[in-house]
Amino acid sequence: MIAPPYLDQVTFDANGLVPAIAQDDKTARILMVAWMNRDALVETVQSGRAVYYSRSRQTLWRKGEESGHFQTVSEVRLDCDGDVVLLMVNQHADIACHTGRNSCFFRVLSHGEWQTVDPVIRDPQEIYGHE
Amino acid sequence: MIAPPYLDQVTFDANGLVPAIAQDDKTARILMVAWMNRDALVETVQSGRAVYYSRSRQTLWRKGEESGHFQTVSEVRLDCDGDVVLLMVNQHADIACHTGRNSCFFRVLSHGEWQTVDPVIRDPQEIYGHE
Repeated sequence: MIAPPYLDQVTFDANGLVPAIAQDDKTARILMVAWMNRDALVETVQSGRAVYYSRSRQTLWRKGEESGHFQTVSEVRLDCDGDVVLLMVNQHADIACHTGRNSCFFRVLSHGEWQTVDPVIRDPQEIYGHE
Repeated sequence: MIAPPYLDQVTFDANGLVPAIAQDDKTARILMVAWMNRDALVETVQSGRAVYYSRSRQTLWRKGEESGHFQTVSEVRLDCDGDVVLLMVNQHADIACHTGRNSCFFRVLSHGEWQTVDPVIRDPQEIYGHE
């Protein structure tokens, strides 16, 4: 298969990865940041659903494959250096974080401490069937 | 000097860095992604202005020191893994990108090509006095 030409302008790092930000296309909230390799980006573009690369499992991670909380991609952007991808997404169930929260960025620095300010929407044990 | 305790929950990579996203606190637009080391994060928190770490220059990069386009930080967030920082910022002159655009994410994937969709607000030659 011929690699799509748009890949040429993406600067993958020494491990063949770029960070990808998922931003909610309705609320504009930043939901999460994960990594993509070439295959993950191509499958994301082709399928219209966010696919990342799991560094711990060293395999493609089709977001939602376990949780059901998939992301439908409405727009893909690239930054000026070509080394960060931005996905505008519709987040299924409004839960992007494995903690059961809307966003992974649920801690705010306040008086020198990280304070959790966002609620758990659904118990992770319910989502994943285990801790 | 004793390191602030909030640093303990930030997972810096093997190079001592974390990616930091700057998001406009009025428009919610993602303006840029850069890197921070411990000193950059501490100075950002203490000064209330975004300070990054320049990997190319290997030194602290006080955003706006050359362009005048500094960022006033209204909120600092951390993600669930502790390995990405999110800054909510007020972007001076509404120009975050070195190309003179509002955001570094000015290219959208459309029909298999990256299309530049955002205007240059100010010519980089005017901003930096050179290309």
